[in-house]
Amino acid sequence: MDFDKLFNAQLDALKKEGNYRIFAELERQAGAFPKARSHDADCPEQVTVWCSNDYLGMGQHPKVIAAMQEAVARCGCGAGGTRNISGTNHQHKLLEAELADLHHKEAALLFTSGYVSNWAALSTLGSRLPDAVILSDALNHASMIEGIRHARCNKVIWKHNDPEDLDRKLAALPSNTTKIVAFESVYSMDGDVCPMQEIVEVAEKHGAMTYLDEVHAVGMYGPRGGGLSEELGLADRITLIEGTLGKAFGVVGGYVTGSEALCDFIRSFASGFIFTTALPPAVAAAAQTSIAHLKTSDVERKRQKEQVAKLRRRLTQIGIPHLDNPSHIIPVMVKDPVKCRQLADILMQDYGIYVQPINYPTVPKGTERLRFTPGPLHSDADIDHLVMALTTLWKRCAVAHAVA
Amino acid sequence: MDFDKLFNAQLDALKKEGNYRIFAELERQAGAFPKARSHDADCPEQVTVWCSNDYLGMGQHPKVIAAMQEAVARCGCGAGGTRNISGTNHQHKLLEAELADLHHKEAALLFTSGYVSNWAALSTLGSRLPDAVILSDALNHASMIEGIRHARCNKVIWKHNDPEDLDRKLAALPSNTTKIVAFESVYSMDGDVCPMQEIVEVAEKHGAMTYLDEVHAVGMYGPRGGGLSEELGLADRITLIEGTLGKAFGVVGGYVTGSEALCDFIRSFASGFIFTTALPPAVAAAAQTSIAHLKTSDVERKRQKEQVAKLRRRLTQIGIPHLDNPSHIIPVMVKDPVKCRQLADILMQDYGIYVQPINYPTVPKGTERLRFTPGPLHSDADIDHLVMALTTLWKRCAVAHAVA
Ligand SMILES: Cc1ncc(COP(=O)(O)O)c(C=O)c1O
Ligand SMILES: Cc1ncc(COP(=O)(O)O)c(C=O)c1O
Repeated sequence: MDFDKLFNAQLDALKKEGNYRIFAELERQAGAFPKARSHDADCPEQVTVWCSNDYLGMGQHPKVIAAMQEAVARCGCGAGGTRNISGTNHQHKLLEAELADLHHKEAALLFTSGYVSNWAALSTLGSRLPDAVILSDALNHASMIEGIRHARCNKVIWKHNDPEDLDRKLAALPSNTTKIVAFESVYSMDGDVCPMQEIVEVAEKHGAMTYLDEVHAVGMYGPRGGGLSEELGLADRITLIEGTLGKAFGVVGGYVTGSEALCDFIRSFASGFIFTTALPPAVAAAAQTSIAHLKTSDVERKRQKEQVAKLRRRLTQIGIPHLDNPSHIIPVMVKDPVKCRQLADILMQDYGIYVQPINYPTVPKGTERLRFTPGPLHSDADIDHLVMALTTLWKRCAVAHAVA
Repeated sequence: MDFDKLFNAQLDALKKEGNYRIFAELERQAGAFPKARSHDADCPEQVTVWCSNDYLGMGQHPKVIAAMQEAVARCGCGAGGTRNISGTNHQHKLLEAELADLHHKEAALLFTSGYVSNWAALSTLGSRLPDAVILSDALNHASMIEGIRHARCNKVIWKHNDPEDLDRKLAALPSNTTKIVAFESVYSMDGDVCPMQEIVEVAEKHGAMTYLDEVHAVGMYGPRGGGLSEELGLADRITLIEGTLGKAFGVVGGYVTGSEALCDFIRSFASGFIFTTALPPAVAAAAQTSIAHLKTSDVERKRQKEQVAKLRRRLTQIGIPHLDNPSHIIPVMVKDPVKCRQLADILMQDYGIYVQPINYPTVPKGTERLRFTPGPLHSDADIDHLVMALTTLWKRCAVAHAVA
């Protein structure tokens, strides 16, 4: 049987619709962020990264680098086993304590990624709690959707960011069900933010558990970087807060926080937690250092907000359509996968500006976009350069439109 | 609603049956392996780890440590994004090339863990190939089982390591189905090894794809550490070889290797690959160094085999029942979760010997065991000490039995 033929048929279809993905090959350079070296033949050697999720540049913070190096020197590279079988390291326990404190919770549980934490926690809750129903926001992340699917419990989708719809849907459920309301604080592709207070109130009214993904908010919102739930003073009313160590904290890994019993429950039953090698102690040490730093330092968050506001203002001035939202994410809508790729290619090749075209399945077809994430390390000159490039490109497009 | 009550009810049930897990808290010390510092109050401060999956001690190899430190200094900590969105680093590409070469394949694809690689690859193949049927060995690992479940395609379980049963089951399938035979080379809990040649022949006879998990074999078998498939000269007849960077290679991460088209297919469609932050460049650099080292160095593998044979011989001499198998894994069967935990506690507290009791769900109930994994860094004195402790303990048990 010619299996490659089967694979290629589906890859060809992707290519035809413009959704085939080409990854930019970068080489990060400690201390240079947002600059990075490009390894792609037709790109300038030095590019400015405008689409990183290392939102605050903590992945290259000297303290974080030092912590990782120190722990590698002290403990070596890998953890050596699953958490149960020789893989639990002192650094994991320290990090879990740091995370519990970050979200004002009793306990925390570490996973190999944010993806795995969502998948494993939701599938364990949904499959093991009696008569569980998961009520999922319509725009929840793939990792939550897969976790919910995997749970094979009842599932109800409520309208994105619509507490009234959630209220109606909760009211329609039998009283003996265990209700789990799953949602995010900052939605990463549109950059919009949930009405958390209303959602929590609706959930409480119906005796539902709340499951909150703060992946795009931890480190960046709240006085200590505890996310939007900390900023709004709602953390203690959320049952479970999930987050990542791979975005604003700049390393890799994921976690959930909640009560002792909740974390112990997931620890004891989640396949995706049990049957996998633990994160390297040095990764845990680096993440812990990053979190601890952002608990007390506000300069990164402040400067990020300034640069985000600056870019937003400039885009509005030059008439480039971008989604209005209260977050740090600036999506410039292109709405066509081929054009989106072309724009990104020109920006990269002619201007050394790297912004990945975002297409299906990350966003729905027809909503393709360039997604900019300005950070504290983008200089005013970086912003000027980007705005200049976009102005030129948009003019060229307008001309092309006019003669077409 | 009191959710903690729901959690505690299920945790209490676990405790009653003796299956509640207590993780040993260790602190690995670079250069000291298999010694480690214990952070548990009632244990000696220094213990000897006898159950690590850092099978060859590569997690603390000076070259691997140096590579990780160098890459942290050069690139910083995290990758900064998903593979598609700014997260693909030059180190990932180098590692993927190293892995493809290791298994004599065209291409390789990196995942955050071996668990995720199995889950994502099997669910993608099973759900996207036309009329797919996955034929799964009865003792496949949890990550494969979850991937197959997630695929929601047809599934057939064949008897563990039984090519004749596989043959019958393949023969019973309609000819228009896409057949995927999923199995492991070394089964980690019994340490037994699959009859690979026979399985491959049966699969070929029926035009089935072969999916082989070499997680417990990579680095350790084959002249270059390419696993059992390399040792047996069968790699080019296996469609997909999956492995981990977290066990013999001593770091963390997982991968699949196969044809260009196969890897591109999984890269393009697997949710668990797409929607998650890439591994830190320094993790990739460390893993690549470890793989490259074990491609040419044989001393680790040789010495491991010697120490495994030594311990096996000594256990037989003193009459301690252990599963006979051709691998590096020595399971001492206890067959009771409570006794298994007691034995492990005494070994740890009285002798500084750390071997985690293995219980449900890692192994079936009633097959609880102590699982020893001697490595090249266990000294003859370590083996003497272990044998002495086990002799004493087994005598004590015999006496207890006699008076009972
Ligand atoms: C909302 C959301 N949750 C979870 C994840 C997964 O986190 P991680 O990258 O740590 O796997 C992501 C993105 O990667 C995300 O956007
Ligand atoms: C057979 C097998 N496959 C896959 C895995 C998962 O690999 P990783 O630890 O890299 O997630 C394991 C154990 O952890 C395993 O035993």
